[in-house]
Amino acid sequence: MTPDATHDPALTSWVASAQAPGCDFPIQNLPHGVFSTAGGAPRGGVAIGDMILDVGAALRLGLLRGEAAEAAAAPSLNGLMALGRAAGLRRQVSALLATHSPAEAHAAALLVPMAEARMHLPTTVANFSDFMASIDHCARLGVRRDPKNPLPQAFRHLPVAYHSRASSVRVSGEAVVRPHGQWPREDGSVRFSPSEAMDFELELAVWIAGENALGTPVTMEQAPGRIFGVGLLNDWSARDIQRWEMPPLGPFLAKSLSTTVSPWVVTMEALAPFARPAPAIEPPPLPHLDSGWNRAHGALGIRMQALIVTPRMRAEGAAPAVLTDTDFAHLYWTCAQMVAHHGSNGCNLLPGDLLGSGTASGPEDSARACLAEILLTGPVTLPNGETRNYLLDGDEVIFRARAEAPGATPIGFGECRAEIAPAIAWPA
Amino acid sequence: MTPDATHDPALTSWVASAQAPGCDFPIQNLPHGVFSTAGGAPRGGVAIGDMILDVGAALRLGLLRGEAAEAAAAPSLNGLMALGRAAGLRRQVSALLATHSPAEAHAAALLVPMAEARMHLPTTVANFSDFMASIDHCARLGVRRDPKNPLPQAFRHLPVAYHSRASSVRVSGEAVVRPHGQWPREDGSVRFSPSEAMDFELELAVWIAGENALGTPVTMEQAPGRIFGVGLLNDWSARDIQRWEMPPLGPFLAKSLSTTVSPWVVTMEALAPFARPAPAIEPPPLPHLDSGWNRAHGALGIRMQALIVTPRMRAEGAAPAVLTDTDFAHLYWTCAQMVAHHGSNGCNLLPGDLLGSGTASGPEDSARACLAEILLTGPVTLPNGETRNYLLDGDEVIFRARAEAPGATPIGFGECRAEIAPAIAWPA
Repeated sequence: MTPDATHDPALTSWVASAQAPGCDFPIQNLPHGVFSTAGGAPRGGVAIGDMILDVGAALRLGLLRGEAAEAAAAPSLNGLMALGRAAGLRRQVSALLATHSPAEAHAAALLVPMAEARMHLPTTVANFSDFMASIDHCARLGVRRDPKNPLPQAFRHLPVAYHSRASSVRVSGEAVVRPHGQWPREDGSVRFSPSEAMDFELELAVWIAGENALGTPVTMEQAPGRIFGVGLLNDWSARDIQRWEMPPLGPFLAKSLSTTVSPWVVTMEALAPFARPAPAIEPPPLPHLDSGWNRAHGALGIRMQALIVTPRMRAEGAAPAVLTDTDFAHLYWTCAQMVAHHGSNGCNLLPGDLLGSGTASGPEDSARACLAEILLTGPVTLPNGETRNYLLDGDEVIFRARAEAPGATPIGFGECRAEIAPAIAWPA
Repeated sequence: MTPDATHDPALTSWVASAQAPGCDFPIQNLPHGVFSTAGGAPRGGVAIGDMILDVGAALRLGLLRGEAAEAAAAPSLNGLMALGRAAGLRRQVSALLATHSPAEAHAAALLVPMAEARMHLPTTVANFSDFMASIDHCARLGVRRDPKNPLPQAFRHLPVAYHSRASSVRVSGEAVVRPHGQWPREDGSVRFSPSEAMDFELELAVWIAGENALGTPVTMEQAPGRIFGVGLLNDWSARDIQRWEMPPLGPFLAKSLSTTVSPWVVTMEALAPFARPAPAIEPPPLPHLDSGWNRAHGALGIRMQALIVTPRMRAEGAAPAVLTDTDFAHLYWTCAQMVAHHGSNGCNLLPGDLLGSGTASGPEDSARACLAEILLTGPVTLPNGETRNYLLDGDEVIFRARAEAPGATPIGFGECRAEIAPAIAWPA
C-alpha cells in the first residue's frame, strides 16, 4: 500500500469535473459502486468527477479486461471483494481515465452523469458487525454508568463489538422510519410508543475482502488484505429503546431499525497516502492484535462531518449545519485490529461483509459524533435559532468525509444521508 | 393451526419404519430438509421413518404439484419459507405417503435411506438472532451478577435478544473448533489462548416464513404465520471469552465461533397438537406482545434433552449420557412473542432467517440447559465415573427432542450434534 503513480497529485483526468476544487472523486480516488439509470438494471461503476464509468460497458468495448473488471461490473460487488484487494484494476481504470488516454473518445461515451443515476447498496450484506473503537465516545457516555470507570472493562484490551442486523442496511437516501419501541417512563410504567430519542452515529463503513474458512483465524498480517475499502455509515440509534433493552446482551431493536451506508467504496489503494501510524496504546496490544505494518500504517486520516437539515432549514433554503467535525485518526483501535479481532476466534468473514467502526468521536467538543454525546452539554442551537435534542421527523442527517495529507490530492467519500420519516400508525 | 386428518393417530404410512416405536418421523411429522447423496447436488426432501422423500423427483413424476412443492425441492428452503406456512403441501405429502396411497409403488422408488444421505443447512441463513426467553436460565446465571436482582432489567417486559452471527451457522455433524480468545487471569494479566470454558446451550431453532418490508412491524396477529417451523440449535458459547467481552454490547466472539442446527425443520402444522396456553406472566405483556391466540396456543410442549459422549465413553461403547432434560413449555416468552418483538421496530425479517429461543432451561435442577448452570453445583459426574467442568476436546454434545401430548402421535426432531475439535496451532 505504498503510494504509486495512480496517487501522483500531478495526474489529471480528461473528465473535466474531476479537477473541480473540492471534488470528492478526482482520478486519485476511483471508488467502486453499484448504480442504475432509468429503466436499467443495477450494475457496477467507478466514480470520476461528477460522472460514473460504466464498468460493464468498458469491458464490452475492450477498454478494461480481466476477472476483477468483470466482477466490478456486476450488480453487487461481493464477487469483486471475493478476489481480494483491487490494485490491478485501479491501475487499469486510472490509465483509461487519465489525460491523454488514447481511449478517451471511446470511454467518454460510457460515462453516466451521477445526477441521472440511482445508487444501490455496494454489496449484498451477508453479515454486519459494529465496533466501538473511539475512546472519547466511550468515555463520554460511560461516565453516566460509572464516573470512576467509564470505559467498558475490555476496552483497552480489544476492540469491543457486537453483531448487528444485516437485513436493515440501506443505501444513502432511503428514509428511516421512526420505530416503535418500549421503555420505562418517569412514573415507572413501561410503555410502547414511537421512539423519542432518535440519534445518529457517525462511523466509517469497512467492506471485507476475501474469505477465511470457519475455524481459521485472521492474523494481523492478513488483516490489511481483508479490507477492500471504506465508506460512511450511520448507525441509527433509538436511545430510549437502547437503554432499556441493552443489559446484558447488547443493543437489538435500537439498532436494527435501519443502518445507512454511503454508496461509494473508497478502496484501501486510494487511501494509501492517508495512512498514519496507529496510536500508541497502553497496555500495548496483545501480539495477535499487533503488527509492524499496523504500528506504521494502521490509522487513517479522514476528516468526517455530520450535518443536519431541519424541515425549517429546508424551507428557508439554508445550508446544512455542522453538528460534528471529527477525524477518524482519533480512534483507539485501527481497522486492521478490528478485522483481526473479529477473526481471532475463527469466525469466517465473507467478501462484502460490513463492519462499522463505531462512533468516530474525537477529544474536542466539536468532535462528538452522535447526539447522545453532544446533548451532554445541553440542546443543540442551530444557525437559524432552532434547537434540537434528539432528531425530529423530517430532520435529515448528512455525513461527508475527506482524506487529506501533505503532498497528496484530497479525496472524498460522497454523502451518506437519510431523513427521519414519521412513525407509522400502529396497526389496529 | 387446528389438528386435522394429517394428525390423526390412526394414520399410518406405507413406509414401514415410520411406525417403529420411538421413531422421530412418523407420517404425522413430515419435516422439510435439504439432503444430498454421493455425487449429487443438494435438494429438498421430507423425512418419513428412516427414509427421505426426494421432493423434486416426486414433482417430476407428478406425485406432488404446485409452487410450494417446487420450492420444497430446491437446494435451500428460503423459497419455500417465502411462501409462508406450508399447510397445503403437508396435505399432499401426507396423502402420498399414507397407507393405501395409490401412488405407493411410484413414490417408493423415490425414497432415499437417511443412512445414505448427507444433510445440509435448511436455508441460506441471512440473519440469525438469539433470544434469552427462559426465566430459569436468567435467574440462575444472574445471581452471580446481582443476587437481589438476578433478572435483566427488561426481562419481564420483553424477550431479551441480540443479533448473532449468520456466517458461522452450521448443520449438525460439523465439528466445532475450540476458539482462541482473550480474557483476564487470576493474576490480572489478560492473555490470548484457546478457550478453557466451552459450553453448549440447548435451544429451539425458529425458522422464519414470509417477509415484512423494513419499517412495517410484525403484529402478534401476524406472528404465528411468520414461523415456518422449528428445529434444535446449539448456541456454542466460550464462557471465558464471553464474560470479558460482553459489557456493554453483548456477546460477540464467544458466540460467532459456530452455531449448530439440526437439519430437519418441523413445521408449525406438525406441532399443532402440542400447542399449549402461554404462561400467565406478571406484569401481563403489553398489547403488542399479546393476543388471544398466544394466550390459548402460544406455548409448545417439547421435551428436549442434551447428552454427551466423551472420548472414553466412545471407546467404551457407552450410550450418550443425559446432561439436561427440559421442556420448551417452561419458557417465559413464546415464539410468537419473540417474532412480534423482533419486528415491533419495523425490522424486516426475511424468509429463512433463524431465531434461537435462548437456553431452554426449566425450574428443575435436571432442566439446566447449559453447563454454566449445571456447574453452579459442581462438576458433572458421568455414569462411567468421569467428571467434567466445561467441555474437553473430543466431547460430543447431542440434542434430541420429542413433542408429546395426550391423544397425539409423538413426533421427534432428529439430532443436533457436534464434537469439539482441538484449537489450531496459532499461526507463527
